[in-house]
Order: sequence, then C-alpha cells, then structure tokens
Amino acid sequence: MIRFTNDYSEGCHPAVLAAIAAANTEGNFGYGTDPHCEHAQALIREAIGAPDADVHFLVGGTQVNATAICAFLRPHQAVLTSRLGHVCGHETGAVEATGHKCVALPCGPDAKLLPGAIREAVAAHPNEHNVQPKLVYISNTTETGAVYTGEELRALRAVCSELGLYLYLDGARLASALAAGGAGLAECAALCDAFTIGGTKNGALFGEALCILNDALKPDFRYILKQRGGMLAKGFLLGIQYEALMQDGLYEQLGRRSTALALRLRDGMRALGVPFACESPSNQQFPILPNAVLDRLRGRFHWEEMGPRAGDAAEIRLVTSWATEDSAVDAFLQALAQALAGQG
Amino acid sequence: MIRFTNDYSEGCHPAVLAAIAAANTEGNFGYGTDPHCEHAQALIREAIGAPDADVHFLVGGTQVNATAICAFLRPHQAVLTSRLGHVCGHETGAVEATGHKCVALPCGPDAKLLPGAIREAVAAHPNEHNVQPKLVYISNTTETGAVYTGEELRALRAVCSELGLYLYLDGARLASALAAGGAGLAECAALCDAFTIGGTKNGALFGEALCILNDALKPDFRYILKQRGGMLAKGFLLGIQYEALMQDGLYEQLGRRSTALALRLRDGMRALGVPFACESPSNQQFPILPNAVLDRLRGRFHWEEMGPRAGDAAEIRLVTSWATEDSAVDAFLQALAQALAGQG
Amino acid sequence: MIRFTNDYSEGCHPAVLAAIAAANTEGNFGYGTDPHCEHAQALIREAIGAPDADVHFLVGGTQVNATAICAFLRPHQAVLTSRLGHVCGHETGAVEATGHKCVALPCGPDAKLLPGAIREAVAAHPNEHNVQPKLVYISNTTETGAVYTGEELRALRAVCSELGLYLYLDGARLASALAAGGAGLAECAALCDAFTIGGTKNGALFGEALCILNDALKPDFRYILKQRGGMLAKGFLLGIQYEALMQDGLYEQLGRRSTALALRLRDGMRALGVPFACESPSNQQFPILPNAVLDRLRGRFHWEEMGPRAGDAAEIRLVTSWATEDSAVDAFLQALAQALAGQG
Amino acid sequence: MIRFTNDYSEGCHPAVLAAIAAANTEGNFGYGTDPHCEHAQALIREAIGAPDADVHFLVGGTQVNATAICAFLRPHQAVLTSRLGHVCGHETGAVEATGHKCVALPCGPDAKLLPGAIREAVAAHPNEHNVQPKLVYISNTTETGAVYTGEELRALRAVCSELGLYLYLDGARLASALAAGGAGLAECAALCDAFTIGGTKNGALFGEALCILNDALKPDFRYILKQRGGMLAKGFLLGIQYEALMQDGLYEQLGRRSTALALRLRDGMRALGVPFACESPSNQQFPILPNAVLDRLRGRFHWEEMGPRAGDAAEIRLVTSWATEDSAVDAFLQALAQALAGQG
Repeated sequence: MIRFTNDYSEGCHPAVLAAIAAANTEGNFGYGTDPHCEHAQALIREAIGAPDADVHFLVGGTQVNATAICAFLRPHQAVLTSRLGHVCGHETGAVEATGHKCVALPCGPDAKLLPGAIREAVAAHPNEHNVQPKLVYISNTTETGAVYTGEELRALRAVCSELGLYLYLDGARLASALAAGGAGLAECAALCDAFTIGGTKNGALFGEALCILNDALKPDFRYILKQRGGMLAKGFLLGIQYEALMQDGLYEQLGRRSTALALRLRDGMRALGVPFACESPSNQQFPILPNAVLDRLRGRFHWEEMGPRAGDAAEIRLVTSWATEDSAVDAFLQALAQALAGQG
Repeated sequence: MIRFTNDYSEGCHPAVLAAIAAANTEGNFGYGTDPHCEHAQALIREAIGAPDADVHFLVGGTQVNATAICAFLRPHQAVLTSRLGHVCGHETGAVEATGHKCVALPCGPDAKLLPGAIREAVAAHPNEHNVQPKLVYISNTTETGAVYTGEELRALRAVCSELGLYLYLDGARLASALAAGGAGLAECAALCDAFTIGGTKNGALFGEALCILNDALKPDFRYILKQRGGMLAKGFLLGIQYEALMQDGLYEQLGRRSTALALRLRDGMRALGVPFACESPSNQQFPILPNAVLDRLRGRFHWEEMGPRAGDAAEIRLVTSWATEDSAVDAFLQALAQALAGQG
Repeated sequence: MIRFTNDYSEGCHPAVLAAIAAANTEGNFGYGTDPHCEHAQALIREAIGAPDADVHFLVGGTQVNATAICAFLRPHQAVLTSRLGHVCGHETGAVEATGHKCVALPCGPDAKLLPGAIREAVAAHPNEHNVQPKLVYISNTTETGAVYTGEELRALRAVCSELGLYLYLDGARLASALAAGGAGLAECAALCDAFTIGGTKNGALFGEALCILNDALKPDFRYILKQRGGMLAKGFLLGIQYEALMQDGLYEQLGRRSTALALRLRDGMRALGVPFACESPSNQQFPILPNAVLDRLRGRFHWEEMGPRAGDAAEIRLVTSWATEDSAVDAFLQALAQALAGQG
Repeated sequence: MIRFTNDYSEGCHPAVLAAIAAANTEGNFGYGTDPHCEHAQALIREAIGAPDADVHFLVGGTQVNATAICAFLRPHQAVLTSRLGHVCGHETGAVEATGHKCVALPCGPDAKLLPGAIREAVAAHPNEHNVQPKLVYISNTTETGAVYTGEELRALRAVCSELGLYLYLDGARLASALAAGGAGLAECAALCDAFTIGGTKNGALFGEALCILNDALKPDFRYILKQRGGMLAKGFLLGIQYEALMQDGLYEQLGRRSTALALRLRDGMRALGVPFACESPSNQQFPILPNAVLDRLRGRFHWEEMGPRAGDAAEIRLVTSWATEDSAVDAFLQALAQALAGQG
C-alpha cells in the first residue's frame, strides 16, 4: 500500500529520531524550561528575524489554535475565518469550547480569506448585540493547498491594522507554503501578531511552535498553556525536535522535498488530462478522477475521499510528505496512466 | 413621537401591573417556589395540553436560550439555526460562550429553517472531527416575521426525530405567531422538546416561560438556571405576571391585537404601493421606502433601520405591540400617504 | 405568618412601584439606553463621588457577580474569597462556569476576608502551575451579617494594590452595611475597582447597580453584559427603580430602617439571654435557640434554618427588610419570651 | 548532577524507544485508528480484566484529567477532591476552565480522600443553590506518595455508589502504586468508573491511557478528545508505546524498580535518623533535612523544595524513576551520611 493519505502517516525524519535517541538518558528539567527548548527558541527567533518573539512549543494543531485564541481574546471577541478554515470545520468546535464564536466568511475554492470579506464582516458586527470580531485566522497553506504570498499577507495585515484585529497564521503546513512561494518566515513574523511553525507534518514526531510577536499577547501565556493541557511534562522532547529541524535548514529542505513531489504528481496528472478541484502549488493536490479509475487504483494506493463530483467521478486528496518516496510518485502516475487508458 | 421601534418600549399591560401591585406586600418564598409560580405553571400546562411539562420562568430571551441550550447539550454538541436565527447573530455569542457552536444554515428572506438544510448539515458533520449537530433552534415568529405553521413544525419534528435532534422553539414572539396562523400551543408542546412562551414582548414587564417536554432534558434544570444567573430571587414576580397573562386568554388576546395592527399597517402600505423586503403575517413589517419619504416621516415616527436598498431607498422595521394604539397606525398611514404624494 | 425568612419576600417599596406605574405607558429605547438609566447613573455617580464611574444595571446578584468577574479576568486568573463568600458556596458554581477558580480562604464566623489570608494565598500560588490570584471578592455585609468598616476596606485596598489584585465588593446588602457603620459609598468608590449597590434586597423589585471605577475594566462591558444574559430588554425598568431609590436618600433610609429593626430584634433577644452564632450589626441575625422553643414559634413565624447546634438547639437566621413591620419585631420578641418562659 | 527531581526528567525506556524507531517508516492511519492502538487497547483490556472497557490514549496528565472530567459531567456538577489533589492545586484551574468547580476536601498529610469527607461534602451541597457533587477524584499514588489499597478503594466505591457519584482514579503514578501494595489493575477496573494508566512517569516518552468502565460515560468520548486538543494526529505513537509497556510485564516491572529504589532511599535515610513529612511506600519520598545538610548536598544532587520546616530545616521531595540508577541511590545515601556527620 502506497499512502498519499496525509502528511502524518509516518514517524519522524531520521535526524529528528536520532536527536531524540541521543538525548534519551539526559536529565532535563520539565515543562519546557530546559536548554534544548531555549536553544530551539533561539534558533527560531533567528530564523524568523524576531529577537523579541516569544516562542512556545505545543504538541498538536488543534491544541495550539485553541490555546492561542483563548489566550488572546476577551470573552466577547470572535474569530474571523474563511468558511473552509480548519478551526471552523475540522476541530470539533475547539474554539467555541473556549467560549469564542468563529465567524465563517465566504471564500473561493482556494479557501483564502480576502480583505474585503474581513471588512464586510466587521461592518456586519457593529455593536454589543453582536460578537466583536477581533482575530483573523488564516492558515498557510490553506485547507485546499493554496498559498498566501508576502504581498497577500501584507494586504491582510493592512486591513487588520486598520480595523484593530489580530492576524493569526496557522502554519501546520508552513514548510510547504515556504517552498511554494508563500510569505517567508520573516514576513510572517513581521506581519502576524502570532503564527505557528508546524512540525507534525514536516519531519517531527509531533510539535507546533507558536511564535508570539505582539507584545500585548505575550504576558502569562504559560499559564494558559498549562491550563489547556498543552504544557508537555517532558517539554525537552519538543525542544530537541525543533533543534534538529531548525538546524542546517532541515525544516525548509523537507518542505521543499514534499512540495516538489506533489508538483511532480500534479504535473504528471495534468499531462494525463486530469482536472483539479482547485489549483494548489503545495503538498496537497485535489484531482478529480472517474470512479472507474479510482476503483482500479484502490487497494494499491490510499488517499482521502473529498466527495462525489459530476460525471461519475470523485474528488480525492493526495498528500506528500518528507517521508514520501520518489518511487511512490512514479508508481502512482504509471498506474494512473494505465487505469485511464484501460478505461478508454 | 410615535414608536414602531420594537415591542418592548413600554412597561406592561395594565392587568399585569395591577397583579404585581396587588401582591406587592405579600410575603412569598424566593426563587420561584411560591404559589404564584405554581399556579402559573399549572395554567401553562393546561394551555399547552401537557400535564407533565416542566415549566421554568426566566427574565429574558438571550438568557433563556443560552441557559436551555447549555443545559440540554453535551460539550461537543452543536446548534443548527438558520443564518438569520437570533442566537446566531444577535446575542453576542451567548451560546458559544457556553461552549457550543451555532452552525448557521442557509435560509430565504423569511429566515425559516427547512428540513432539507437540517439534513444536509447533519450529513456535513459526519464524525468526531466535527461538532455533533444535536439541537435545532427555530423561533416563531422568525427574525423577519414569518410564521411556522403546524404542518411545517411537524415536518421539522419528523426530520429531528429521524436524525436524533432536539427541536427547540424560541417563542419570544409566540403570541403573534399564534395570531398569525402559526402552530398552536398544543402543537408546540407535542412537537418540540422544549419551547418558550415569551412574555417580555407581549404584555409582561419581563419574562419568558420555558416549557420542557422531553423527559430526558428535565433533570436538574434548576441548577443550571441558578448557575447561569437566571433564577430570580423574587421569582414570584414572574409567577404573578404569567398568572395574569394566562388567565382569561389575555396572552392570546394581546397577540391578536398587536398582529391585527401590524396587518393594518401592512395592508395600508400595500395599498400605497409600498414593496416589502419579506412577507410577514405577524407583528413585524419590513417595508422598503424611498429615503426622501423616510426623511419626511422621521422625527414624528420611530423605527429600526435595516439598511440601504436599491434606488435611494431603505428597508425599515415597523413593530406593533399590545401597547400600540390604533391611532398610531392611522397616523402613520396618513403621514406616509402624504409623504409619498409629496415626493411624487 | 410573620416572615423573617429573607429580605426579598415582598415586592418593592411603594415609591418604586409608583415610579414604575407612572412610566408604564412611556415609550423608551431598549437595553438601558434610555433617559431613566442615564439619570439613575448620574445620581449614582454623584452619590458615590465618582464622576467617571461606569454604572451598569443588572437584574440579580449571581448574575452581576459572574458577569463582572468574567469580564474582568483573563482565563488563568482566579478569585480569592473567604470560604463563606457567596460566590464560593451559594451560586452553584456560577464563577467556575465562566472558567475561573474561586479559591476559598479561611475566615472566622464573621466571614470576613483578612489581608493576611490574601497575602498567604498569593504566596501559595507562585507560578504557572497554579491559577493566578487576581480578584478579591468580598461582600458588605458579609454572609453572616458582619460589616467592613472604611478602615478595614483601606487595609484590603492596600494589600490588593501591593499584590496587583482587583478589589470587588458585592453590595447585595450594601444598604444595611451603610447603616451599620460600614464603609461609605464614597469609600467604596475610592477603594474598590468595582462594587455593586444592591436593590433587590433594599426596596427595588429587582436590580443590582454595578459601579466600575478602574478604567482598565471598563471597555466593552456591555458586550459581556449582553452575552451573559444580563442586558434587560426593558432596561428602563432598572433605571426607573434606581432613580426612585437614589432620590431623596430613599436607599439609605430603607437600609437604616431594616437595620434598626434587626438591632431591636438582637437587643431584645440578648435581653432574654439568647446567644448568637456571630456578632452582627446589620439586618441579618443568627441566634441559637433551643429546639423546644423553636417548635413553639414555628407556624407563627418563619426563618431560615442554619443547622443544629450543641444542647438540643439550632442556629436560625432572622432577616429584616424595608418591608418588615415594627409590630412583627414586637410580636416575635413577645412570643419568644413566652416560649422561653414556658420552657423553663 | 544526580537528579531526584521528578520521574519525567529522561526520555523513555530503551524498549519503548526501540519500538518507536522500529515503526518509524511504517505508514499508519491517524488519530489513534491504527493497529498499534488497537493492539495496545486489547493488551490493556486484558491486563485490567475488563473486555468491554473503552481505552483512549492521551498525551499528558492535566490533559487527560480535564478532558475526562469535562466529558463526564453536566455543567452544574462538581469534582470532589482532597485539598492536596493534583487537579485542585497543580493544574492551573484546568477543570474550572471547563466550567466545573473542584471542591477541596480536608485530608491528612497522606493526601488521601476518606469516605467520611465525601459524605460530609455531599451533605453540605443539598440543593440547586450549590454545585452538585458528582465525581470523586483521587490519584494513586497520592500527591504525597501514599497508596490506596484495594480495601480502601472498595470503601470509596461503596460511598460513591451510595451517593450516586463517579469514582475517577488518576494513575499518573499507578505503576508505583501497584508496586507499593496499592489496588491492582483489575481492582481499579472493577471499582472505578474510569481511571488512567500513566505512561509519562513510567517508561514512556509520553502518554496516559484512559480506561472508561462505566457504559454511561463512553458515548462520544472521541469528540471531546478532539475538541479539547487531546487527539494526537500520530496517535500510533501512543499505541506503539503502550504495546511495549504492556507486553511481558514491562509496565509493572518498571514500577517495581522505581519503587524499590525509593524504598532503599527511605530506609537508608531512616537508618540515619532522618524524619519524614509523610509516610510513603512509593517512588516519592519527603524527608525533612537540616538546611546545613542540604547546602552540602546541593550542586551534586537535585530535588524539589517543598518548603521550610521547624528547626532551620526543610522538606524536600526525592523521586525515583525507571531511569534512576542504583549508584545514584548509593551516592546520595553516602553523601547524606557524610553531610549529617559533618554537621554533628
């Protein structure tokens, strides 16, 4: 079985595993107050060009989003997100469970939130009978693989600053965004109030690094981290992993690799005439394939089903990761070519 | 100034005030454990034909909605509401503040939630990565004055039963719904898991009566009522008011009155050729009038602005209540006719 | 039946009822944005000597406490209260339901929180593995009728300022505290970050006025008020009542009256040799009486049982209010004298 | 530096690390729906003798406690815990952040909750003006190293059943409790409504296994798990670790080892005349040592400070783990003997 199911099917990059193994018998203080975390934080501050950033390590994506949002907002304040935003539909109401409404805004198939939609949402919430929009949630890449460029991020920053909103960027797949022409790390740090550098989907066993840039959002974050169950007892495990990822450019290298494989998949499928549900320059691809073709591929390959589409076809999601092998891409394209030919 | 601003601009019906005054020096036990509350509960159980209903009295609408929903749901369960539902946009995230997501569903200008939209929403939330739809929120009348008939309510009940959902009806304006051909009190009791009989907007100083029909939702409600600040120390004030309203048909009589006045307004405006943003058979009317006309009426009449509409016009809301005088309707229609003529 | 059950058994003072009746057919804007509320707010600002105070009107005591606390605190911050504090044991976890821990501190039978206990509690919560103490909750009078003097309040203010804590005073029975030598209105305003002026137990039908003095706690309070169900649609009802109470010294006059009656009860019982569970100079008294005596009084008088005490006796609570008649006190003392004699 | 700081200073047992490494390039489905988790769940069901138990894997202790409690309780229900319970003082109000009050009950220095205290607490919360006690939280071992035997657990079960309470056992240090004569795994499963088998402090990199025995508490737990950020994307990492721990008795073997080392420390200190703050048969020891002695040991050994004690002394906590070496115990006892002698 060759898996394009997601980018968290395997453990971690060998360099990360080696680092964990090497430190296994070390004694370290708990809760992220150890030298590995300090070093990893320093490496991240340097990489993002923000010497004053607060950097916190959490285990998972839903956890970091809900913890950050609940730390940043007052009770009546709400999140603005595209209707396809991960916090909106795929986190079982984690944000609402902290008391805050997620306002779902219209977006196209690229799942991007546009300045105009933000402006309209703020206008539609004029007073104390409505929640108060306060934090704009975006992810890079988006749920459907699209990428915010530096220019697009600057436009969002401008509307947020004008309207008094925080800009929060969920970087669960930031490595692929970086490889696909998205806003760079320094741009994220310069333009966002807070953002995450996702490890789980890019070489770590697990881990999300939360960078807080806005001084007003920094105080007492560790209290909320602990309260919401996000403070790992063996916090050094997160420090060790981010040390490995942030050294010698491994993080960005893995993102380039997963992205290149995805583009090879995309271009190969395009050459075979396959249409896509949305344009994606990153490590998730959303082709639309005839059900008969999918039936021939099933069993040998695995993917996520996105739902039926017109013409006895279906949209699927193919995801590549640091762990995807070149041969997997070759095998898929070859099998697809045969399946398509067999169908004709 | 003649007010069509809303249906809570005045105090209460004289009979209600007289009842409060008559009981003013009585000594009563606190927290709704007094004979007035018991009597009012008995009158309501009789009126709705549900001898086993639990009836609780709360002060306000946002309060009763949030308290009931938070009492009825487990943490991962969500509310389905039309995108125009009151809980969705006009209660400052009160439901989300109790931890539950409100899923906003598409609806037409009548703000009604249709069985198909419910079915689609449940299908779109298939597993533990999504919130679990569990409670359908509707209001009768709707935010835009439309009315669910008994037949429509039965259709909603059917889809709720099929999908394992609770049906909750917010009756803040139930009196006008009853007068306008909406599902009757006994139908509400037979078809809903819980519903409210609104007093604030129909003759009471304040008060909403929550009727819980589903036995599974009854236990320990008074704990939640107290915890959420909804248990009035002088609960007898609510009992006294509902005694007055539920005796001799006063509640329904006031609803008929406010509704008849609104229909007179509607028909008068129609006769003058005024278009409406939505059809309403109840005590809220949403005409669209040229701004020049509105300018001539402003100062003498008061209404709520709903927003600009095409053709240098605006949609406004006119609301009648038990306290609206016949002469107010006459005066408005006369002034409108003059203003329209003057404009021509 | 003569009731000493509590101070919310009756409706409201005749002057308050008259004011409500007089304004019954007025048209007023909703949600506390009307001239009555504005006037009442101005009267309160003048009475407390704080022209910049924000004043909000809520319906009930649990509601105002939970709403204010949840508006003032960040998620990891906690309330310090004496173990007998009302928020701690008698509000069904309303504060915890907003996410905040109430830390119960030791106190004597007077239920007073002392600066030393606050200091120790802060020392016992040193870091992010504990909640962060941030708000000190006291009530004047306390749960057991004791009173904080101006000097005692200054001492609490000093420790709060030193430790970076907010001082919040629940004035549900402030009128009796004022009459019993407690800190005055201007002292409350000068020393507290926020406090309430309770109406429910002192002449109003219902109502608590929340005064916010600390500028940092003022922004957006009306959003939280609405979200937590505390914004009354007919807010003018609260304004009208506080206008009546704050004019011509009615509020303080009613507090003097209820307190004087309680002291007459106390002194009469003392003269009969009755012991008390705690010293109270205010409108609640806690005598300890033999069960045989209580049996003779029961049926003619009503009180709250506080629990059995040594020697086949019980502690009871007797409460007087603006509505208590002089003759009720006379009758009780006379009956008690007979019951005690009959017992001998 | 020799560390007795805690039992989570090192990574994981070599067998666990080997298992993680061996599976590193496997492809597995996400979110705990993989064969490793299924196998580990089966091993746990067998070990606890409960074929129908639901077993869920979470990352950390605060997380599992808060998630389980919030899944099990309705909004008005509260947790009963000893005043020294971990949820009460060391989790930054995580339980309160889900809306539930933790009622802190008196206990001795062993931190154990006794049936009598539970009974008194329930009696002290008689009605809807109080929270409703519903879940009893204990940990085995307790915060101070004491152990509930099977008999003691049966007594708690009896009072819980009588009063309609859930019994929840936090087994963060269950392995040491098992080794120290505590209730066995099968007893935990037979007597508790839910309990955890802690991995973080006994050989795993991280992980807590939650066993739910009460059928009423099982439905939809995975929704809450996801919502509260406790569903690990690479859930298989938890399955792999528990497979390793539950096979060939490794889990219990590691608990025996850490406990035996602690008892050697204890007996050695006792032989030197050192007093203890509390009796502990498990892997945490709480000796009281003169400050002068501690000064001589500091720098070579590390421990947690528990606070000053009479006689220029201090209480410290020494913790052993699977990773503690025999030589560390020898070195400490030898150095302590010298330090004590040097002091005399």
